[in-house]
Amino acid sequence: MSQAAQLSPPRQRIIDAAITCFARSGFHGASMHEVCVEAGMSPGALYRYFPSKVAIIAAIAEAERTQHAAFFERMAEADDPVEALASIGIDALEQMLTGPNAALCAETMAEAIRNPDIRSMFDRNIREARAAVVAALQRGQARGTVDPTLDVETACQLVMAMADGMAVHQALDPTLTAARFRPVLQLLLRRFLRPQGAAA
Amino acid sequence: MSQAAQLSPPRQRIIDAAITCFARSGFHGASMHEVCVEAGMSPGALYRYFPSKVAIIAAIAEAERTQHAAFFERMAEADDPVEALASIGIDALEQMLTGPNAALCAETMAEAIRNPDIRSMFDRNIREARAAVVAALQRGQARGTVDPTLDVETACQLVMAMADGMAVHQALDPTLTAARFRPVLQLLLRRFLRPQGAAA
Repeated sequence: MSQAAQLSPPRQRIIDAAITCFARSGFHGASMHEVCVEAGMSPGALYRYFPSKVAIIAAIAEAERTQHAAFFERMAEADDPVEALASIGIDALEQMLTGPNAALCAETMAEAIRNPDIRSMFDRNIREARAAVVAALQRGQARGTVDPTLDVETACQLVMAMADGMAVHQALDPTLTAARFRPVLQLLLRRFLRPQGAAA
Repeated sequence: MSQAAQLSPPRQRIIDAAITCFARSGFHGASMHEVCVEAGMSPGALYRYFPSKVAIIAAIAEAERTQHAAFFERMAEADDPVEALASIGIDALEQMLTGPNAALCAETMAEAIRNPDIRSMFDRNIREARAAVVAALQRGQARGTVDPTLDVETACQLVMAMADGMAVHQALDPTLTAARFRPVLQLLLRRFLRPQGAAA
């Protein structure tokens, strides 16, 4: 977890507790009191680090951004963006579907549609992620590893929508394990993105 | 709208108002009072049709099921399931992304993860939809229009996750219009699902 190195232990403990509470009760349903109990902290200690629920949500969005940054760096270094998506991209997705993260992802998406403050925090993360993947796919088009006729902006949005949708579907259906979806998703990425005529 | 024929006008008016309110304020945030105001009805009139918010949500799930049934019938009749998905499947998706439906879809997914009652209502719809698409893809495998080596159960889950994820992404980014995603999604479906070597 890349953010563990950047956050002081009490901040990290509060964020972990908040993720559990938000996944369980929703952003609206979870109270600061519930987060205190989950973190094993007094309200006084918690408020010293985070004055409000929105401040905790902002810290979660920032931690997500830090995790993304490590993934983008590896995407930017990859010679073949399709294989990078099929390996480290799916690893990142698997991480996103672990523990309370899947439910939190669904909660974030629903809340972002309704609440402009939460939306702007996560919008930046989505835009940055999309820009990094599109840039990698465009490099692949130049190098002949990605179909040069493909609308990579839209293709990237479809693939990112699938990843977010999988977070929800997996939270509803735990049989959709990484062992099951990984080979099929790899096939989809290769067949969809590769120059036509290339082996999948 | 297929349910319009089956629901009496006041019931339909309440359901339409509730969809608008749930999309705007969430299932928890929207009150029965808000639904009354939106429907232009007195609480007495509304409670005559629906005793609770959960009863309205059940009616929305049932209306979704009726809409699905029409789509499944057409999928079951289609000679080529990939072309059926690429035409009437994308039409159904476009309908799902229209007006308040996209925000409602995101809200439903988030709530279904947390709330077992809402989950069981929509779980049945998801299971029925998946069974219909899987059966169509298996017929395609037998007829040579779908890759016979494909794990169609998992492939179907990925495609359905993408559709649900697109509802959220489109609610966040209105530039993801049907005109933009339709040709790219058609390409994805054909390349992913067709026997390899077939033209896409």
